[in-house]
Formats: sequence, structure tokens, C-alpha cells
Amino acid sequence: MRAVTIPEPGGPEALVWAEVPDPTPGPGEVLLEVASSGVNRADVLQRQGFYDPPPGASPYPGLECAGRVAALGPGVSGWRIGDEACALLSGGGYAELVNVPAGQLLPVPEGVGLLAAGGLPEVACTVWSNVFGVAGLRPGETLLVHGGASGIGTFAIQLAKAFGARVAVTAGSAEKLERCRELGADLLINYRDDDFVEELRRVGGADVILDIVGARYLARNVEALATGGRLAVIGLQGGARGELPLGRLLARRGSVSATSLRARPPEEKAAIVGEVADRVWPLVAEGRLRPVIDRLLPLPEASLAHEVLEAGGHVGKILLTATGEEGDLTAPRPA
Amino acid sequence: MRAVTIPEPGGPEALVWAEVPDPTPGPGEVLLEVASSGVNRADVLQRQGFYDPPPGASPYPGLECAGRVAALGPGVSGWRIGDEACALLSGGGYAELVNVPAGQLLPVPEGVGLLAAGGLPEVACTVWSNVFGVAGLRPGETLLVHGGASGIGTFAIQLAKAFGARVAVTAGSAEKLERCRELGADLLINYRDDDFVEELRRVGGADVILDIVGARYLARNVEALATGGRLAVIGLQGGARGELPLGRLLARRGSVSATSLRARPPEEKAAIVGEVADRVWPLVAEGRLRPVIDRLLPLPEASLAHEVLEAGGHVGKILLTATGEEGDLTAPRPA
Repeated sequence: MRAVTIPEPGGPEALVWAEVPDPTPGPGEVLLEVASSGVNRADVLQRQGFYDPPPGASPYPGLECAGRVAALGPGVSGWRIGDEACALLSGGGYAELVNVPAGQLLPVPEGVGLLAAGGLPEVACTVWSNVFGVAGLRPGETLLVHGGASGIGTFAIQLAKAFGARVAVTAGSAEKLERCRELGADLLINYRDDDFVEELRRVGGADVILDIVGARYLARNVEALATGGRLAVIGLQGGARGELPLGRLLARRGSVSATSLRARPPEEKAAIVGEVADRVWPLVAEGRLRPVIDRLLPLPEASLAHEVLEAGGHVGKILLTATGEEGDLTAPRPA
Repeated sequence: MRAVTIPEPGGPEALVWAEVPDPTPGPGEVLLEVASSGVNRADVLQRQGFYDPPPGASPYPGLECAGRVAALGPGVSGWRIGDEACALLSGGGYAELVNVPAGQLLPVPEGVGLLAAGGLPEVACTVWSNVFGVAGLRPGETLLVHGGASGIGTFAIQLAKAFGARVAVTAGSAEKLERCRELGADLLINYRDDDFVEELRRVGGADVILDIVGARYLARNVEALATGGRLAVIGLQGGARGELPLGRLLARRGSVSATSLRARPPEEKAAIVGEVADRVWPLVAEGRLRPVIDRLLPLPEASLAHEVLEAGGHVGKILLTATGEEGDLTAPRPA
């Protein structure tokens, strides 16, 4: 098969489309023929050499994909060759074939095309496990999403609204904030003009914050928490060591969690995937949650996809498609 | 009545035994005639002017007491004048009389004397709500307790052991560690000689850490966490602003919470008190949890009690007793 490889860490040009050995599914694994694969921030870190795949994972980037079942390893039931599916991966989505533990497969939700489904598993599992799992967002509470126009952000807005929460978002342009508003966001904060702490304090603080910035926002996030508020850090784009105002956290009876999905053991991933199938997929099928897709690019153009992601002008997911796949995108696309 | 007052913040001598107006119980409140009151670190902060009582609370120090019901406010049921009880307070325990919302009253556990019971409510509610509530310690997990010989520590060791956890403690002397071992602690760490991070890493890390140090231990506590570990900060003796290694926290999928009991609204306090009555008091009645008492001092000698607490040589609770109370201490005392 062919895959996007990283012979040496570096800039976007470090991604090289190359012939590599085909994977074969082991016990409990399913081999997928990839139709599309979502591009995530973690892929950029991996490309730069800062985020090695966990032991046993594919060396190629790509944490989610959609495709068709091409082969079944020993002991797999419930899937047949040719079935369409999407999957949460530990790596390897940027390829023509990828192995997946069967517990990390999800059906393609009703009403979503196969290509669009390739950008759903990582965001759905990340938002579900952090906002609803770790941070326990409840109806009527306020969620603050940093980077509301990102793949994670556009999904988090819709999921939190579907569960009856109020949603505040930050983004860097009026256009991005308008897209967030269309998805249901209640409080729009342009971080270039306004102080999110002040805006949140005005509405009583955030019960949950979903944060991708890390250190640079740590103290201000704590300031923005409501009493009993929970800060869920899922990215460290603004640094990995920050000052924590423990006195303020104590006064707010708050908490800070930091998690990643990729390093979790397969059984934890399978549990999250199962909850997403039960609790989130029906909302997608009802049309209450729509995949938001910025653009599709062919897999061999992964370097360009990373340039687009790093430039930060996109809204929603950037997807890589396998050669030959096209036109299957029934999900709405930006104008 | 007479109470320990704080005319001006300062050292232990700032505590002044003085004649003050009697409190009268409002709706839903019970007036207790105080037999004993536990001395807590928070009382020292209040004496120093760093920890004002929450709105509506008594201006006098004292976050827990035991005594006899002296009067009932309108709408209180389930208690009669003369009943013995202990109570979680928002303040005012260092006095001859104190008002308590009825939801914060607990019976004196079977097998515990009235005087000894005055040192139980704050530690029991703090340990229960943090270690089992916020941090969700499970059987088979490892709890690290900093300051294992303190009032909080001696209670946390026993409660965690009763629920089937493994307990590691830090303390500053071999004598204190020996007392912790007698109470059930499995791993004894003298923080003057040994690095608690290294000791905990050797046994797979701590699933839960109960911390009273705050900033000074923050980074090392995160290092000592197991995968999925939860750090519960309940004191800031080592500073209120510390560097949080978010990258390490993320790698461990950990969390940091910081809470205090005193500022919680009465309904949350009542809920915690109710859980303690249901889940913890039976263990005390069975003798599996014993109050550990360092010494009793008369209320007018509160200054001396604070000196003893701040010197840090004590093991377990220091209790203040109302004048005229004596000899009612059936709980074991240190030799």
C-alpha cells in the first residue's frame, strides 16, 4: 500500500507519500481500506517529532478514518468484509490501509457520507470523554470552548447544545464566530478584542472549560471558572508548564484535568467508542449534530493539509481522501 | 456567653477570651452548648487575618464542635434539648454556645465520648468529601496522604484502609511515622530523608493524593501520580501559586482539584454530613476508626493550642474544652 510517512521530523514537507508494506490484521483487529482520514493537531506534533506513536501503533500519522472493511483478524465478530465504518485510531489513518482493534470501530452514522465520517471519531470521542466524561457537563451549565471554530470546537458546540448546556466560544475572527453562532454558540468572544475572563465572569463563570491552549491560558482559565468549575485541558498549543493559582482554584472549588485519547489502553478507547455510539451517534443521525468540514484534500497532499491547519484559517475539519474517493460527501460543506 | 475573640489579627496572643452576646438560633438552626471544639489550620489563618468567615457565619474561630442541644430554632425536628451531638461549623466553635444549621449536626458516634467527638466532624467531612467524593478513591488503589500524623492525616489513613485502599504517608519524624503505621499506613516516607516522588513511583504511583502543602509540592505531586491519578489539594501551607507541569499531567491523564469545606453553601454541607453519617459513622461505631487526640486544653487557653499546632509536634487532633467539661474522653489518648 501507500502511506504518508515521516522519514525525518520537520515542517509540512517532512510528510512523504511512499510505498510501504501492507498491514495484516492481528487477533481482534479489522483491516480497513481507508476512504478518508481526519487531520488533527496531534499529527502536526508527530510530524515535528514531539509526539511518538504509542507502543504497537502504526508509525504513520492519522488518528481517525472512515473506510470499508477489507479483512478480519481472528476472533472478530459483528463486521463483514465490505462494511462501511469509521474508526478511532492510535495512528496510521494517513494510508490506504489501516489496522484497527474492533472495539474502536463505529458504524457510519445515518445521514453522513463515508468521506465526512472520517473526521468524526477523534473529535466525538475527545469531546464526549472530556466534556461529558471527565468534566461531567450537566444541562443548564455553561461550557467555554477555546477555538470554537476548530474541528473539536465545532463539534463541542453542537454536542453541548444538544445536551442542554449554554455555550461560550473564543475565536480569532468575526467570520469564525459567526460560524460558531450558526452552530448554536450563545456567547461569542473574539480573543483579539475581548478578555474572555471578563466576558465569562459577567455571566457567572464557566462550569466547564474545554481548552487546547494549556500553559498560556491556565491562570486565566481558572479565573474564568464558576464555583465548582472544571477545566479540561486537551492540548498544549500555548505551552506545557504554567502557573496554577491554587488559591483561586480552592476559592472556586475547581479542578484541572489533562487528558489525551491516544495513549489510553484499547479497553478504555473501546469503552469511550461504545458510549459515543450509544449517546452521540443518534444525535448525528437526527441531524442535530453535523460534521463541519473545511475542505477535502487527497492523501498525497498531506503536506498542504498541514500547512492549512497550521495557518489556522480553517473552520471545522480538514480531511484527507484516498485516491479514487470522491463525491461521497453528503454532509454540508462551507460555501 | 464567653468566646475566643480576635480583636486584631496576629500571633497566638491575638486570641482573647471575652464576654460576648449569646447567639439565638434562627429558623432551621440548633443552639449547642459547646463541650469541645477541634483546632484546625484554618483557625490559624483566620487568626492571622487571612481567612475571613463566610457571610453570615460566626466571627469567632472553630469549624467543629461537640456539645448538648440548648435550644431549637423554628422548624427544626429530630433533635431535643439536652441531646448530645457534634457539628460541622462555618465558625464559632471556640465559644460556650454556637448556632448550627440542623443539617450540619451529627450524632455522637457510638463508643466515642462527647469531648472526643468535637474533633471528628471537620476531618471526617473533609476526608470523605475529598478522598471519596471529589477524587473517588476505589478499593485497591493507592492513597498518598501528606502530613499523615495530622488530624486530617490520622483520619484519612484509617478511612482509606477501612475502604480497602493502600495508604502511603509522609511525615517529618520516625515517631510520627510509627503512629501512622499503627493506624494502618502501608508505606512510610520521612520527607526529611526520602523523596516521596521516588518512593511512590517505585510502587506504581499514587491514584489519589490528599495534599495540604499546595504550591511547593504541586509539580512533585503531579510526578507522583499514577496514570489516571487525582491530586486533591485542601491546604496551601506551602504557597498558593505553583508551577503545574501540564505536559506531565496530560501524559498521566491526571487531575488537580482544590476545595474547602467552609465556603460551601449549607445544602452542600448538609449533603456531605449526611453521607458521613451513613458511610463513616458506622465504621467509627465498629471501632475501625478511632479519633486520634493529641491533647485537650481549656477554651481560654486557645492561644496555647495554636502555639502547639503551629509548632507541628502533635499527632492527631488538639481539642479545646469548655470550662467545667472533663473526664468524658473515652477515646484512646496517646501515651
